[in-house]
Parts: sequence; structure tokens; C-alpha cells
Amino acid sequence: MIKVPGFLGCGISCGIKKDGEKDIGLIVSSHPAGASGVFTTNVVKAAPVILGLKRIKRGILQAIVVNSGNANACTGKRGIEDTASTARLVAKGLKIKESLVIPSSTGVIGVPLPMEKIKRAVPRLVSGLSEDKLIDVAEAIMTTDSFPKYASQKVKIGGRTGTISALGKGAGMIAPNMATMLCFILTDISIELAAQKRALREAVDNSFNKIIVDGDTSTNDTALILSNGVLGNETIRLDGRDYKRFKEALFDITTQIGEIVVKDGEGATKVVRVIVKGARTEKEAEKVARVIGTSLLVKTAFYGEDPNWGRIIAAAGRAGVGFNPMKVDLFFGNLRVVKNGVEVGMRNEKKASSIMKNSEFSVTLDLKQGEGRSFVVTSDTTVDYVKINAHYRT
Amino acid sequence: MIKVPGFLGCGISCGIKKDGEKDIGLIVSSHPAGASGVFTTNVVKAAPVILGLKRIKRGILQAIVVNSGNANACTGKRGIEDTASTARLVAKGLKIKESLVIPSSTGVIGVPLPMEKIKRAVPRLVSGLSEDKLIDVAEAIMTTDSFPKYASQKVKIGGRTGTISALGKGAGMIAPNMATMLCFILTDISIELAAQKRALREAVDNSFNKIIVDGDTSTNDTALILSNGVLGNETIRLDGRDYKRFKEALFDITTQIGEIVVKDGEGATKVVRVIVKGARTEKEAEKVARVIGTSLLVKTAFYGEDPNWGRIIAAAGRAGVGFNPMKVDLFFGNLRVVKNGVEVGMRNEKKASSIMKNSEFSVTLDLKQGEGRSFVVTSDTTVDYVKINAHYRT
Repeated sequence: MIKVPGFLGCGISCGIKKDGEKDIGLIVSSHPAGASGVFTTNVVKAAPVILGLKRIKRGILQAIVVNSGNANACTGKRGIEDTASTARLVAKGLKIKESLVIPSSTGVIGVPLPMEKIKRAVPRLVSGLSEDKLIDVAEAIMTTDSFPKYASQKVKIGGRTGTISALGKGAGMIAPNMATMLCFILTDISIELAAQKRALREAVDNSFNKIIVDGDTSTNDTALILSNGVLGNETIRLDGRDYKRFKEALFDITTQIGEIVVKDGEGATKVVRVIVKGARTEKEAEKVARVIGTSLLVKTAFYGEDPNWGRIIAAAGRAGVGFNPMKVDLFFGNLRVVKNGVEVGMRNEKKASSIMKNSEFSVTLDLKQGEGRSFVVTSDTTVDYVKINAHYRT
Repeated sequence: MIKVPGFLGCGISCGIKKDGEKDIGLIVSSHPAGASGVFTTNVVKAAPVILGLKRIKRGILQAIVVNSGNANACTGKRGIEDTASTARLVAKGLKIKESLVIPSSTGVIGVPLPMEKIKRAVPRLVSGLSEDKLIDVAEAIMTTDSFPKYASQKVKIGGRTGTISALGKGAGMIAPNMATMLCFILTDISIELAAQKRALREAVDNSFNKIIVDGDTSTNDTALILSNGVLGNETIRLDGRDYKRFKEALFDITTQIGEIVVKDGEGATKVVRVIVKGARTEKEAEKVARVIGTSLLVKTAFYGEDPNWGRIIAAAGRAGVGFNPMKVDLFFGNLRVVKNGVEVGMRNEKKASSIMKNSEFSVTLDLKQGEGRSFVVTSDTTVDYVKINAHYRT
């Protein structure tokens, strides 16, 4: 259950999804809220992202309207018009300015939005708004997700207790950078725009941008934060003493959402943290971690619970980062399996295999050439992943 | 059946593979042959590659000894010693200089070579040599390959008919650049070293470096060419009139081997040529083609025979290449499915789906911003791919 003072939600079925499941949601703040966003880096941007990039510039929003089942991407001029009129319909229904509404979509690419269905849905969304129904929005944004995703945190700011909550979606197409991921973060804490923007950017970089399911990135990725200030705290400033606390709470929230997304990765049975240390720089560590975390041979070996460390080292070797293979150490959990590029012994390998039977474990590669350290969180690639994605639309 | 004048082969089982299948092979030329090679770009290089890189420098070789079932990679100093002594044993058996023997390995990473088995195998390899048994070498280098791979071509050079043949292996870990791929090209045509080197480099760039199965590259990739000059032709020179003909024949051979490898890609049911045209440069076209050809979402859609063109365009959008998504056209075979970024119509999509039922088809993306053009050859990602790779060692 999630609740944030001053925020209302509603999620219903309007008929975009064939199975009658919830497919459209609305989030509204009682007051215009300070707003920042991070969007997909894909050159191909869905229509709501193109519009959203414009709307976020003013730093103020009051409502998010979001549908699943249709990405409204690669839909040309018509797509742009459809996303704008969706926002317009919601603004009218709420009697607020159009520029305060941001639209968002996720689902199949290339199919125009069914505007008649959306038009009929808007009045129902508006009349159904309730502070108890943000959870329904989390349901309404699911695509191949197998459960609704949300997280919530209390944080003490200047003697008052604020709330930061987030609803998210994402199960496939997850990869640095960002994933087919939507994440809407809502808070009653007052924070100045520059501080909000910076905190969101850093939180996204350290959470959503570190998770991998299949190496694809989407046309629709969006992370938004809305702060409505209902808490009545003294506005947090970038150079103020509460900023750090806010940032850490936000980071906790996005980390939680990120890990839930990997756990629910399409067909995934395991969550694996791939840590690279001893690189010359953090950037090089990250490069190596990403190649390992994206390697199909590595991810299928995770699925098979096979401590095939050779695949991990071979993947590291094609990351475009120089290192001495005769020096590297490799760990499953805390267990060293490779020392100076050579296997420690078959007994350790058997122990490693039993570590891999856990639903969560870590793999650490030590390049032993510096202090650079980074990580990604990835999943295994399974038979079900292929089944889900071979027949997603049919 | 492959035969090349002046080349002998032998392939037997020495017990590296548990199932008693052929796992070690020997190729010998009647005379020392001009030799060039292209090796893996992976930082992590198998022991035989490290030694091979040294041996190839002199440009002259007489024998190739190759085993499957064990990559002799990530095996430290011992691996280097083992590969050197394998070559030494063969040199002794053949009574030729050690420096004329190049070793090669493919298989599991991280396990030391079983030298006792190899020692016992060498006399059998030497005594079994025959001009009819190159095919047995093709069998002896198979790992997850489901059939032996070879190609052969006759080419007229200065009134004589020369032969270029190749044996290869590779079924997984195939990706630009190069693949877990071994390819040994044998010819009786005399060609100067500079010309041989250049022709091999170009042939590899346009064939093996364009094929993708899973995006991983191996520690052991090796393409070698040996020209023994037995044909007695006037030696082909880089600036001579026969060079072009030789190069084209070589390119034909490597293209054939490359396509056979994709066809036999682990679990693959389809071979798809991904063509990108209208890019600003050839390099940008290639970048986009590679991202599309490696995308798991695209490759699973190929498997599902789902003309999910949105995934193809979304993959293109994350290649780091700028283009206008509102301008692109996309074709399945010759059928245009997307025009100026928007679907042409559901009828074409149904036709596209039937094109995808073929075991071979092409996908063409036209970015419409220049003359740059490139391609990759990829396969579908299937349930069987995951099954094969989850349990490869166990």
C-alpha cells in the first residue's frame, strides 16, 4: 500500500489490453508540484517522451496520465497529436492547465493509441481519484511485469516526517541506460528544483542505470519526481543540511525499485550483482561489469547454476579495457574460484555451484590494477525469457 | 569431401571428449607454406593463441595441430608450456622444425590440457595422415557444432587450376569480432606473403567479422591460411593481375564458412541478413546493423516469426548513431513494412510474418541520410540456445 500526503491516484481498464486488466492510470497532486525527469537516451523516442521533455522544462507539474499496452512510439505525427490530446482531456477533466499534465505510455511499439477508449476513460479516472488508489496506478502500468512495483520511505526533515514513494514498472528491455522502465516518484517534501534535479539524476545513475535484463533500451523510459510541499518543511536546498538525507532516502527508493525490476525480469530466476574492482578507473570497472552482466553466455550459465568462470573472464576480455588476465581473481560470493587467472581448485568450483543455487548472489572480478570499482545488477537468461519475448504480441 | 594438393590430414579421438568422438586433428603440408593469420581481439587470449601470434610472424608454417573439448585458456604458465610441448611433440613426430608447427584449441576454458592423452595421440595422428582425411580434422574441431564445416573452390590462375579449401568450426560465442571460430584455409596456389596477408584480412572482415550468434567473442578465435605453392603457378603479387581473382575466391570461401556457422548457430532455426543503408557512413551503418543483429529482443522476435519492427527501430536508436526516426523505412525481404517511421499497414505486417517463416530472410533498414551501407548475418535466439548454454559443461 502506498500513500503520499496530497497525492491522489486512480487506475482502471479502458480496453487497450485485451484481457480486461487495468491499462490506464492517473496521478494528481493537490497542488502544482516541483518536477524533474530523466528520459530515455534512445534516439527513437516515443511521442509522450517527446512531449514530456518539453513539459518538464518549466519544472512544475500537477498530473501524470499513463497507459500500458501501447507505447505510442513510432507512430509519427499522429502519435504526437494523440499524446497531446490525452493530456488535454485530463487537464480539462481536472480543470487545470494543460502544461501541468505529463503523459506517459508503455507497451507495443508502432500502433496508434485508441483515442476513443482513452476519451471515454478520462472522466472515470478523474471521478475515481483517491489517496488510497496509487496502488491501482502501479497495476495499470504493468506490461510483462508479473506484479505491481512500488516502494515507500519515511524521512525526517526539520522535525517533520515526510514521505517518498515510488511506483514503477519494467521487466524486459531493461539495461543501462535506462530500461523500459517507468518510475514515478512522489513526495510531500518541499525541495528546490536544482536540488531535486540533481538528486534524481544521481539516484537514477546509481540504480536504474545499473540494472540489466536483456541489454535493450526502450523508446519510453521515464523517471519523474513530483514534490508538492504539503509537508510544510523549510524548502531543502542544494547547500542545506537536509539535502543529503533527502538524497539518501531517494536513492534507497530507486535502488529498491531497481532490484524489484530485476527480480521480476522476464523469465528471471536469479538476481546477480556483478562487481568489478581493482580497475584503473571507475569508468573502466563499469564498462567491464556491463559487458559481463549483458553476456548471454554468462547469463545462461547463471541459469544453469554452472560456475563457468571462463565465460566471465572471456566476457571481461572483450570490454575494450586493458588488463592482465594472468593477474585476475574471481569470486562467487566470498569464495575465491580463480586466483591470478587460474582456477583455485575443483572443490571451490563445487562450492561455487551451490552458491549459485541461491536466488541472489554476487560475482566479483578483481583486476588488481587500481582502485576503480563499479557494479551492475543482472538476472539469468532463461528458457522462459525466450518464450515470453518470442510471442509477446501474438 | 575436401582435398588440396600437397596437404594431408588426420583426425582421431584421444579421450579429451568424454563421448569418444574425434577431438584432435593434424594438418600437414608437404612443403613449408607461406602463412598468415588473424586472431581474437579479446584481451584474454588462450595459450595457443599467445604462441600462435609469435609463430605466425615468420610467415611460414608446415603443420597445424588442433584439439577440441579444451580451450587451453585461463590456464596460466602451465597452459603456455602445454601448448608449446604439443607443438614440439608434433614437430618431432613429423621430423620438422618446431617453429613450423602452430597449435590451436577450442572448448572449455580454465581446464589444463590432458597432456598424457595428447602425447599418446601424436604418433597415431602422424601415421594416419592422408590426403583424404582433411574431413576428419573438420570433425575433430567440433564442439557444440552439429556438423563438420568446410568449403572448397577451384580457381584458374595463369592457366592452371588451383584449389582453395577451408575447414572451420563455430556455433556459439559467435560475434563480431571474430567468434569462437577456427578456420584453417589451405591452398596449393603460390602467393607472396603481403598479398596473402591482405587478402585474408579483408576476407575475414567481410565474413567472419559480420556474423553474430550471441554477441560473445572467444579467447581462441583463429583464422589461418597456408599456401604451399604445389600448383607451380607464377607467384601472385599484390600488384599482379591474379590477385583480385585469388581474393575473390578466398572471400567466397570465408563467406560460405561464415554462413554455415550462423546456420549451425546454437539452437538457431533462422539465418537473417540485417542490412542497414542510407547511413551517413559505412561505419555508422555497421554500428546500427550490429546492434540490431545482437539485440535479444530482435532475435527472439525472429524466433517467434513476429515482424515486431518496433524492436528493430528501437534497437537502431540505441546504437549511438544519430538519425531521424520519422524518416526511416524498414523492409522484410523486399516488402516495405515501415515508411517514414510509421507502419505501412497491417496487411504488409501479415505478409512480413510469412516471409519470416522462411529459414533465411533479410531485414533492411534505410536511414535515408547518406550512402553508408553495411550488414551483419545473424540468427534467431531460441529456447534451445538457452538450454544448450545453461548446461554446456555439466
